[in-house]
Amino acid sequence: MTEHPNISSLTPSGALGPDETSSRGVAWVEGEYMPIEDARISILENGFTCSDCTYDVVGVWDGAFFRLDDHLDRLFQGCERLRIDPPAERAEVREMLFELVRRSGLRRSYVQVIVTRGVRHGGKKLDLRRLSPALYGYALPYMFILEPERHEVGVDLVVARTVTRIPPTALDPLVKNFHWGDFVRGQLEANERGGSCCLLTDGQGLVTEGAGYNVFALVDGTLHTPADWVLHGITRKVALEIAEEAGIPTAIGAVPVELLSRAEEIFVTSTAGGVMGAATLDGRPVGAGKEGPTTRRIRERYWELHYDPRHTEPVDYDGVSRSA
Amino acid sequence: MTEHPNISSLTPSGALGPDETSSRGVAWVEGEYMPIEDARISILENGFTCSDCTYDVVGVWDGAFFRLDDHLDRLFQGCERLRIDPPAERAEVREMLFELVRRSGLRRSYVQVIVTRGVRHGGKKLDLRRLSPALYGYALPYMFILEPERHEVGVDLVVARTVTRIPPTALDPLVKNFHWGDFVRGQLEANERGGSCCLLTDGQGLVTEGAGYNVFALVDGTLHTPADWVLHGITRKVALEIAEEAGIPTAIGAVPVELLSRAEEIFVTSTAGGVMGAATLDGRPVGAGKEGPTTRRIRERYWELHYDPRHTEPVDYDGVSRSA
Repeated sequence: MTEHPNISSLTPSGALGPDETSSRGVAWVEGEYMPIEDARISILENGFTCSDCTYDVVGVWDGAFFRLDDHLDRLFQGCERLRIDPPAERAEVREMLFELVRRSGLRRSYVQVIVTRGVRHGGKKLDLRRLSPALYGYALPYMFILEPERHEVGVDLVVARTVTRIPPTALDPLVKNFHWGDFVRGQLEANERGGSCCLLTDGQGLVTEGAGYNVFALVDGTLHTPADWVLHGITRKVALEIAEEAGIPTAIGAVPVELLSRAEEIFVTSTAGGVMGAATLDGRPVGAGKEGPTTRRIRERYWELHYDPRHTEPVDYDGVSRSA
Repeated sequence: MTEHPNISSLTPSGALGPDETSSRGVAWVEGEYMPIEDARISILENGFTCSDCTYDVVGVWDGAFFRLDDHLDRLFQGCERLRIDPPAERAEVREMLFELVRRSGLRRSYVQVIVTRGVRHGGKKLDLRRLSPALYGYALPYMFILEPERHEVGVDLVVARTVTRIPPTALDPLVKNFHWGDFVRGQLEANERGGSCCLLTDGQGLVTEGAGYNVFALVDGTLHTPADWVLHGITRKVALEIAEEAGIPTAIGAVPVELLSRAEEIFVTSTAGGVMGAATLDGRPVGAGKEGPTTRRIRERYWELHYDPRHTEPVDYDGVSRSA
């Protein structure tokens, strides 16, 4: 694929506009909006002391939410799987998220929503069934796992040797969660080995996912991504849709490390940065050692979709929406 | 073993003394002491959003810390294993814990100390190596997994079928941690099946531990407890010391579920309640269906040790210590 005519306008520029510098973020805690600096939760939150919660991250790009309903679907499914009664209706959560972004003034935002089982009462024996679920949210300036100016280079992936992914028998991977101890170990190992992003295996030679991202490998023209032991990422879903639209064959199944090591291209997907190619895997170049053409094609389409009304919902900032 | 002459004075009474009712607890956050109700952490704490922290729980009984140095050893080992630089010296942590209890006025207290990797900066890409570790602590009224008036009855154990313990390859079990998603699933299952306390297996038929407690099984006169996949609990350690002192043979190794199912006695150990016998396992009576004689002997000795200067450090409440 050759140079996209309008790539510069579609690719995140990394530069902060005036609205980004005007706000470090806004949070919603216990029914009140506040600057992110003031957003605090009880030290007795079961979401903290038992990591007993689920969350989601939605992107706002140039004034519009991207695929918001997909994220809300997953949030509410997560509550159900954890057996947490949602503390608010879907419409209320939506309204809170829009209001967060509106108040922040951020045109490009990383929006997080968290549902916990609730706050413990100090000195009382814990009874999970008696807690009152809690809702929190915040909007921050948009974050990238890979800085936009490096998108044509790529991330440096490391398949962790010192840690494996928490298995589905212990923790439901379909519930987006804060149990990141394995990812933290993986990231520390990746950094030590000169990489920027870890990938964890299941301990049996199959690749799972990394610290907040899914992984794809292009092998003999087919795009492979793991089926099990992974979160069903929304960016993963969009990448699969784009591949289908583009006629790129996909295979959702077991992805051995060995398959990854002979991939023509590898990329990772996350709301925090979109579609990000891999330059290296365990220190060796992937393909030409930079973002490959198929990855680029999917990345560019991914950002194009952020301007497609079928995928976006504009935020009404002080009565002036993006289209105005 | 027959009735202990002074059991009523040694066994926790469950009744709150005047000092217990006078305080719901005191916390220490970012260098300040405050009522527990006001203790809050940043919503961007990596200890919350990545459960990236370790903690410990120490008991204060009738005005004295029990085995404080064992707990501090484990806390600092946990920091090292997580590669978190402790944000305070050991002497400073000790001083903070004593001051928490002194300020709370609590003579019987559940004291928690937490070390996290620190607070993320909103809108910045996460770099684990650049966070500043944080220290938190609080003292609450003492908590029991099993109410003291039920110690001679026991807990109702359930070996979870729907969830397995997070394996050591993913998370270091020697680091006391808040990754409780598996325990939460186990507790919900235990409650559904009429039990009060879950036990998780490794998925291969071996027992590991439960939601904040280790497990012991007396089989043919030998006390078995799992060696691997478990936290090295301080109450577990004390129970093993008591067994040795009493000439009860111990075996620290693999404990199949099958071994548990033919135990004469079973008990669990936790700082939140000490040594607690099991009345039932998966709905069937353990032994006589109440606390057995060996369990009782170990429990009574456990509480006796709370008055032994070799194991305790008195808190100086307003210049008046327990011995005064």
